[in-house]
Amino acid sequence: MAEFLTLIPPDQAREQLLAGIEPLRETEKVGLMDSLGRVAAEDIHALHSVPHFPRSTVDGYAVRARDTYGASESIPAYLKLIGEVAMGSSPTMSLGTGQTSLIHTGGMLPEGCDAVVMLENVQVVGGNEIEVGRAVAVGENTITVGEDVAKGQLVIPKGTTIRPSEIGGLAALGIVDVRIVRRPRIGVISTGDEVIAPEEDLRPGRVRDINTYSLSALIQSAGAMPVSYGIIPDEFEQLLDVSRQALEQCDAVLITAGSSASSRDQTALVINTLGKPGVLVHGINTRPGKPTIIGRCNGKPVLGLPGNPVSALVNGMLFVVPLIKRLHGDQSVLPTPTVKAELTINLASQAGREDWQPVRLRKEESRWLAEPVFGKSNLIFSLSFANGLVCIAADQTGLSSGETVDVYLF
Amino acid sequence: MAEFLTLIPPDQAREQLLAGIEPLRETEKVGLMDSLGRVAAEDIHALHSVPHFPRSTVDGYAVRARDTYGASESIPAYLKLIGEVAMGSSPTMSLGTGQTSLIHTGGMLPEGCDAVVMLENVQVVGGNEIEVGRAVAVGENTITVGEDVAKGQLVIPKGTTIRPSEIGGLAALGIVDVRIVRRPRIGVISTGDEVIAPEEDLRPGRVRDINTYSLSALIQSAGAMPVSYGIIPDEFEQLLDVSRQALEQCDAVLITAGSSASSRDQTALVINTLGKPGVLVHGINTRPGKPTIIGRCNGKPVLGLPGNPVSALVNGMLFVVPLIKRLHGDQSVLPTPTVKAELTINLASQAGREDWQPVRLRKEESRWLAEPVFGKSNLIFSLSFANGLVCIAADQTGLSSGETVDVYLF
Repeated sequence: MAEFLTLIPPDQAREQLLAGIEPLRETEKVGLMDSLGRVAAEDIHALHSVPHFPRSTVDGYAVRARDTYGASESIPAYLKLIGEVAMGSSPTMSLGTGQTSLIHTGGMLPEGCDAVVMLENVQVVGGNEIEVGRAVAVGENTITVGEDVAKGQLVIPKGTTIRPSEIGGLAALGIVDVRIVRRPRIGVISTGDEVIAPEEDLRPGRVRDINTYSLSALIQSAGAMPVSYGIIPDEFEQLLDVSRQALEQCDAVLITAGSSASSRDQTALVINTLGKPGVLVHGINTRPGKPTIIGRCNGKPVLGLPGNPVSALVNGMLFVVPLIKRLHGDQSVLPTPTVKAELTINLASQAGREDWQPVRLRKEESRWLAEPVFGKSNLIFSLSFANGLVCIAADQTGLSSGETVDVYLF
Repeated sequence: MAEFLTLIPPDQAREQLLAGIEPLRETEKVGLMDSLGRVAAEDIHALHSVPHFPRSTVDGYAVRARDTYGASESIPAYLKLIGEVAMGSSPTMSLGTGQTSLIHTGGMLPEGCDAVVMLENVQVVGGNEIEVGRAVAVGENTITVGEDVAKGQLVIPKGTTIRPSEIGGLAALGIVDVRIVRRPRIGVISTGDEVIAPEEDLRPGRVRDINTYSLSALIQSAGAMPVSYGIIPDEFEQLLDVSRQALEQCDAVLITAGSSASSRDQTALVINTLGKPGVLVHGINTRPGKPTIIGRCNGKPVLGLPGNPVSALVNGMLFVVPLIKRLHGDQSVLPTPTVKAELTINLASQAGREDWQPVRLRKEESRWLAEPVFGKSNLIFSLSFANGLVCIAADQTGLSSGETVDVYLF
């Protein structure tokens, strides 16, 4: 198995996968709500200042600040009440010296007003006079035009994933159509003479296709569009034909190998035949995922993932999800959030290899425990019984029972 | 403002919101791929054992274990090679004493076989004989029927959110239609005389509706269905009518108040008029979000959220997302993953109040820094410029510059 002679570390493999991959250039325009979870295809600037009129930030009285100077509870300032600013329209009054008007949070400051006194610092005396018990400075309890966002300011840079907060920001600016990057299309090919579709009846020796579905779901969760090319038997010419078609129609192609070594070798041969330069990485120093192949054919990434469903899905998380991010032009570089938990048993690991161990989280009193989930043949259920993965770094030979570990939820 | 006399802690408010809320009973059946992200409405059991036939876990030779006992590299056991197990079908041979057959990973064990010798421990001598250089125990390198999942075993409990790993597990079992909980419908009502739709032209004194869109996006991200009831002016009867309609059509209703205190008071009055018991919590000891109202009308939750877009969205994360989880019957209780970062400045907080401060993460060398994002009027852009929230607990009076904090990404 010459293929495993030069296992490379996962970080280095990921770098080779992503090197030189350009974001997709094609874009689409969608309605505001449909842009949720998509990636902005262009810089979005504020079309106008926010706020676009000077506002009060409190419920109170609009004043000329200098009319309140020196005012205190014992020596209040007296102002003449000339009206109330209605919400949602320009004030009809303008404030002269010694005048004030009632104003609500978010109300527009009348002409002449440069500060607002909060309700609780005011006593109304008689019908049209107020006592101000506290001085306010110019600008106090107000917000001026453009103080939040100036007209022309870059508010959502190209490559931003649109979250509920961006949706709100776009609504504030009246942007109801958003130009987004089209979804990357990721081709998925399952191989193996023993593999049948989930709807087929079981027969001895046959197993149902898991990887097409779990990988497609992963691709969809990551915001891309999975394109399934079905189950291809372990036959070189047929696999090559389908792979050619997938490479033409998609932005990247995943081939999950059958279970045996010869099936994996065939994947490598197909990738080398599909286009230049072909296989870049054959074998990664990680568990699960050692037989993962990373290739580039005519500028497009082609990955050979192990047939084992856990390996295929975990390596999908480690390699395919970052690839989708890159194809989207997603600029955000953020650490992956984790949960701290106490490992319940010792975990051994081979030095020099990065291990990703599925664990199930369980709460005991106020502590979270991470219980490793094992499966002899690493069937998919060891992942569906788990909540997360614990990484045993290449320079560690294991983790100890009781040790606090970072759990990556999935 | 009597409403704020009895501020209660957010955890207690959340308990009151969720107390006695039953998961939705209505279900739907969808195709396998459409079940991604939805919640299983019934316990799913394995329809058959996995694997359903005994398999080899390696590439090697199928043997009777006792034929290899005592074998070593210096004194190998000799076995007669009688064929090869083809992938995907029942073996045509059965192994007698001293016989072996080639088998691939995932291949079905032939009759008589109870272990597999790995390829690397075998030398082929002549055309139909092998030398076995290592003894194997019964069961070695094999997996028996049901060893992963036994027939009838509970594999996906009711209330599980379907992830890519569950999709894979369902495919393995041939389950191509999945019964899921229907999406909770969450009504969203924006109020305020000053509020206009995003597509309307700006006028002095008017601001665009942000909350309908940011909250709807949040609801959608959490797997529920937002139902918008538009923008209602600060007029009691009209708001009551629309709220009644929303309460009838939805599983929960959110009303975002206009900016002023009187608009918030009106929301409380509407909730008290809509149905019994009405307002449960008026004012929560948190920032942002103090004016949040939690009510229950005829068994359905009705929330009054502050009109301020940051308050509305942050309180949506703190209260509406857990509510959606509960309505789905989502059983998973998992901690929220966080990222560790170093705070760049001191943050003050009032003792007794829980503060949620938006921060932006930035990498400096190998450290992550959390830079607080402030906005005078807490406009939505302070959230869209941020990546996460830092919580200052009620028993803290602040956090110090340089302190390591947990950041909740959003």
